[in-house]
Amino acid sequence: MAAKEKITVIGLGVIGGSYATALKKLGYTVYGADCDAETVKKAVERGIVDDAATTAEAFIPISDIVVIALYPKQVEGELKKISGLLKDGAVITDVAGIKSHFTQRIESILPEYADFVFAHPMAGREKKGIDYADDKVFKGANFIITPSKRNKKSSLDTIERLAREMGFRNVMRLTPEEHDKIISFVSQLPHAIAVALVNSDDRQFDTPRFVGDSYRDLTRIANINEKLWSELFLGNKDNLLSSIREFEKYLDIIKKALENDDKAALEEEFIRATKRRTEFNKEL
Amino acid sequence: MAAKEKITVIGLGVIGGSYATALKKLGYTVYGADCDAETVKKAVERGIVDDAATTAEAFIPISDIVVIALYPKQVEGELKKISGLLKDGAVITDVAGIKSHFTQRIESILPEYADFVFAHPMAGREKKGIDYADDKVFKGANFIITPSKRNKKSSLDTIERLAREMGFRNVMRLTPEEHDKIISFVSQLPHAIAVALVNSDDRQFDTPRFVGDSYRDLTRIANINEKLWSELFLGNKDNLLSSIREFEKYLDIIKKALENDDKAALEEEFIRATKRRTEFNKEL
Repeated sequence: MAAKEKITVIGLGVIGGSYATALKKLGYTVYGADCDAETVKKAVERGIVDDAATTAEAFIPISDIVVIALYPKQVEGELKKISGLLKDGAVITDVAGIKSHFTQRIESILPEYADFVFAHPMAGREKKGIDYADDKVFKGANFIITPSKRNKKSSLDTIERLAREMGFRNVMRLTPEEHDKIISFVSQLPHAIAVALVNSDDRQFDTPRFVGDSYRDLTRIANINEKLWSELFLGNKDNLLSSIREFEKYLDIIKKALENDDKAALEEEFIRATKRRTEFNKEL
Repeated sequence: MAAKEKITVIGLGVIGGSYATALKKLGYTVYGADCDAETVKKAVERGIVDDAATTAEAFIPISDIVVIALYPKQVEGELKKISGLLKDGAVITDVAGIKSHFTQRIESILPEYADFVFAHPMAGREKKGIDYADDKVFKGANFIITPSKRNKKSSLDTIERLAREMGFRNVMRLTPEEHDKIISFVSQLPHAIAVALVNSDDRQFDTPRFVGDSYRDLTRIANINEKLWSELFLGNKDNLLSSIREFEKYLDIIKKALENDDKAALEEEFIRATKRRTEFNKEL
């Protein structure tokens, strides 16, 4: 077996910090970089990296794999900084929750010798920052890779192997367009709904005293990182708008049934939803 | 201390069965009635009642408290059957999730000597039937009483005491109109949203393979008892329609922000939602 790779994680927030934690436990040499000096200090003190600094420059030339765990808009700038320092054959990967426009932009500035494997670890958290980094969130979660024509098979396999080693259960390969379409439905639409639900409270009553599990479940993700999620929403706006409109169509069916006192139509919607949600339980 | 009351629970489904279980454990004499013979048999065999039958007739004349744990539309018919058999001073209560029109209808047929305390134990379950009866669901849950002008103070206090003994944490008194307004927002709107979300899936992809916690949380209650919930929705349609419309206004703000690439407007919505949801966590 070849020696374990050396890996640099750029951005030690909740996701980057969790990558570092998981990879270090797996026996990789892990370097960390974060613009926040306090975060760098914590990463070293807590032993979730072998070394860390406020820039990645010193680590890139000796790293086989570089994980850029920054907000999507920051990836381009970071890539420009590190491109010239990359070790021959190094694999770069990311964690961005949007892919289509994002990967086009990144590929347009990517040097020919660099191999960038676009990836989305589906293990988001409400909290941000290294203090909430925890490799347990990866256990059983989904991981999507969106291969590009330029990717070497070996690079794709390397990132897939890391994902599995870190505990992800389903590692799937999709086109960037497929990724963004499904993500707009399973992740972004629920966040839009949760935010709208919480904000639509007219607060005539002291809501928290009256809620049950349903409201609590539906609004948990209304606690949302505004900088990151506004980027994710806008970076996938066409898909998200069409998911919202589709959702509204089905909410309209319920509204019309109420307006027309149409019990049969309501029951039909409820039966369809129950059937789908039950199938769902079986698969999960 | 006076002797413990004798209590008849009519309808031994998931809520009635849970009442019986809780009350029996508390040392009350509990009689059960359910139109389903199999349910009656299970209730007796499992010892969650002292006696049970397919009709309540034999138990009503010796009961101090009668809990009607049926669907809202069935309460009227049941009340007509038992009214003439009630013990002097008996207190009747219900578990219906809607109150305004419902209580008006019930009071219009209620004999003058009967005292009906309208109550809503906020501990709904996705599952139905006695097999899912479990008094643990009451622990820490909310309980709303909607007093009527006809209620004796002692009757209200009796039902409040039972609720607390069964483990409910907040026992609140509201007008039927207040109850229905708040319930349309904290309970019915989330159910409408969950159903519409699951039904709006175009199923172009194998959704279950891609979901994370957010979609799972938001759709759990899409598994819904269609007979009961279509009654609850239609029995509170004006409030629910206005809650849905208010929710749609806030979803529109998100849509407009997406259409206009307005990052600041999106962030503003996210910040407001996060602030509210965080306050919320503190209170709960």
